Amino acid sequence: MRAIFIAVGSEMLDKERVDTNSIYVARRLMEVGILTDMKMVVGDDIENLTWAIKNACKRAQIVIVTGGLGPTEDDITREAAANALKRELLFKEEIVEDITIRFRQRNIKMPEINTRQAFVIDGAEVLPNAVGTAPGQYIDAETCKLLLLPGPSREMKLMFDKVLTDKIAPLCNFFIYKRCFKFAGITESETDAEIADIYAKHRNIRTTILATPGVIEVHLVGRSRKSEEEARIETDGVAEKIKTKMAEYLITEEDISFEEFIVAALKHLKLTVSVAESCTGGGLANRLTHVPGSSDVFLGGVVAYSDEVKKNILGVKEETLKKHGAVSKETAKEMAFGIRKLTGSDISAAVTGIAGPGGGTKGKPVGLVFMHLSAADAEVGIHKVFPGERRVVKVRTINESFNLIKKYLGEIAPKK
Amino acid sequence: MRAIFIAVGSEMLDKERVDTNSIYVARRLMEVGILTDMKMVVGDDIENLTWAIKNACKRAQIVIVTGGLGPTEDDITREAAANALKRELLFKEEIVEDITIRFRQRNIKMPEINTRQAFVIDGAEVLPNAVGTAPGQYIDAETCKLLLLPGPSREMKLMFDKVLTDKIAPLCNFFIYKRCFKFAGITESETDAEIADIYAKHRNIRTTILATPGVIEVHLVGRSRKSEEEARIETDGVAEKIKTKMAEYLITEEDISFEEFIVAALKHLKLTVSVAESCTGGGLANRLTHVPGSSDVFLGGVVAYSDEVKKNILGVKEETLKKHGAVSKETAKEMAFGIRKLTGSDISAAVTGIAGPGGGTKGKPVGLVFMHLSAADAEVGIHKVFPGERRVVKVRTINESFNLIKKYLGEIAPKK
Repeated sequence: MRAIFIAVGSEMLDKERVDTNSIYVARRLMEVGILTDMKMVVGDDIENLTWAIKNACKRAQIVIVTGGLGPTEDDITREAAANALKRELLFKEEIVEDITIRFRQRNIKMPEINTRQAFVIDGAEVLPNAVGTAPGQYIDAETCKLLLLPGPSREMKLMFDKVLTDKIAPLCNFFIYKRCFKFAGITESETDAEIADIYAKHRNIRTTILATPGVIEVHLVGRSRKSEEEARIETDGVAEKIKTKMAEYLITEEDISFEEFIVAALKHLKLTVSVAESCTGGGLANRLTHVPGSSDVFLGGVVAYSDEVKKNILGVKEETLKKHGAVSKETAKEMAFGIRKLTGSDISAAVTGIAGPGGGTKGKPVGLVFMHLSAADAEVGIHKVFPGERRVVKVRTINESFNLIKKYLGEIAPKK
Repeated sequence: MRAIFIAVGSEMLDKERVDTNSIYVARRLMEVGILTDMKMVVGDDIENLTWAIKNACKRAQIVIVTGGLGPTEDDITREAAANALKRELLFKEEIVEDITIRFRQRNIKMPEINTRQAFVIDGAEVLPNAVGTAPGQYIDAETCKLLLLPGPSREMKLMFDKVLTDKIAPLCNFFIYKRCFKFAGITESETDAEIADIYAKHRNIRTTILATPGVIEVHLVGRSRKSEEEARIETDGVAEKIKTKMAEYLITEEDISFEEFIVAALKHLKLTVSVAESCTGGGLANRLTHVPGSSDVFLGGVVAYSDEVKKNILGVKEETLKKHGAVSKETAKEMAFGIRKLTGSDISAAVTGIAGPGGGTKGKPVGLVFMHLSAADAEVGIHKVFPGERRVVKVRTINESFNLIKKYLGEIAPKK
């Protein structure tokens, strides 16, 4: 079975709003084995919405429409759905009574326009709204089940959960099992080249590769008509092969961020960290401190954007800056040492580089970054030339620095 | 003319990602008088995507597809579009050469799979990608113009802007005139309450209020079928009234970020800045250093996440921490003084607070933040209790600190 989700509202077309309804519905449907193929966002226009519902109902077995069930002129979902299914809209006196009671409980007289909410598609089952005035509708239209739900999340979720249990789940016959990996130190296309052969033949597993600068995610969603066990066995088979092949790049199998992984690993090993940043300009500290409870392991940092700060606060030697320059492995090393001594942390990470767009030279191009990890038992320096514009270079540098910390925590720290 | 936007990628169906591409495209199309009727999000499935493109091309005169142009197996946009238009895919050797050069510049051998990106729909115009490997395609298909653009925002925007100017704008018959304001220190609903009466009656001006934590944007897009002058006169009339009424909250009339405004203002006044951060954890420095050329005015900062760092690096007195606590106006003041002395900057900003979710007490709740600006001729301290979760508190604190700097730069600094 496949599902299409339709969100109604012009405001969603040109404003930055995360449509959490569709994500909620997609996740819940996946739990009963239904994959959402497609989502549509349609403005408050009756012709467009009629077209969208009609076509969605031809394509999918389940169509969920949210929004446009309010009492105003631009609430057009009832009418558009009736047009799409070529059915009548019937006026239900009992719904008016329900809404009147609801208003009376709030000591308000029901506005006349709310009677619009009493129109129901011929043959639809009315879904009571426990927390708002707009009732939902469930229509069993031969090849397609059509659900009309209110837009506000709280009303939508309560109503959807009930329909899912009562009507949709009994129709389903898929079991779902999921795995997830996060990798660093490898690109998206390199990842695909490594693992495509492993996942390609498995038609019951949906494989998604997601790339952000410096971190690659691989998501596997397996399904089976027989049992959860069957989905699990096939998915685990693929997942374990990927895990073995990509072991050196693996950050975590949990669906957490790189900084959440680092903070958790530091907590586990009871180690503290500090950072000294030039080209990332505070971004490394900022990412670490996004994690609640990071203050247990992160002591602090210095953003050394000028040579004076590198010298006066971090203690980088005048001579080092003169001889090797601010962007050099020697400066990165002294920055890391300096912040570790200043804060007394167990380990420290330092970065210095050229984020661009200006400042590059032939010998030291834009994107060149030196990273250094310092600990009582380790000094590790690396450098990279990262592609991309200023912000991308910052993000890649941050993730590469996390990778440096991760490697230390995985290989050196546990042996102590 | 009407447009349909199609975003390709399974990850957008069940993960919380804000699809900024569609919003950018909708806004830019609106500038030339084209309204976006509908948006579709389609998973990486060739049948579904073929269906979506085919139907969209029947319905709209402009169809923009983003994503799915990468080199991997699940990048299916080229093939789906060819199927939908019933056209051939042709292999273009010159695209392989372009991509090979791009990889060579990064000292990487081109992975074999990247040759997949060299397939072009028969009759399509290839759109060069200035910043990535995936070329775009523009197809003039009788009743519909179809655009295939890469998913990463930066690549998509550059390519779309060029097609908009070269191909789409000439098809349109509206004159457009825009104004924009950014405000701080006021909420979205307060802004609307202030200005709704001013813009409400103007049907030729589309007014959009966008809110991020701490910054409110108001965009006015006026249009006229007659002349740019007609659009300009009506829009300027509304804009000037808004400007007068909201003068005390105005950051800028340019479409730039708060940090770009601050860096430009510091450059103009030839002043340098440094920051001392506790609860923002480097976020303040990170935002300032997003701006190219910020190194001219930003000297550096200290992220003082522990009391020891506050004392040992910034010189906050033991006594102050004991008597008033780390989250207090006294500590904020000493942090600001400390970083200004350390770096020798003209002005400095310091923040200390409780970002949450833990760490709140009855007297000092989560969201309580003290901010302080220090300069030779000014000491300004404020505090706020910000609503929202950890990251939102960080962002609000950063923007409020920028507002503190902005006020100093506007009122005190110029008088010197």
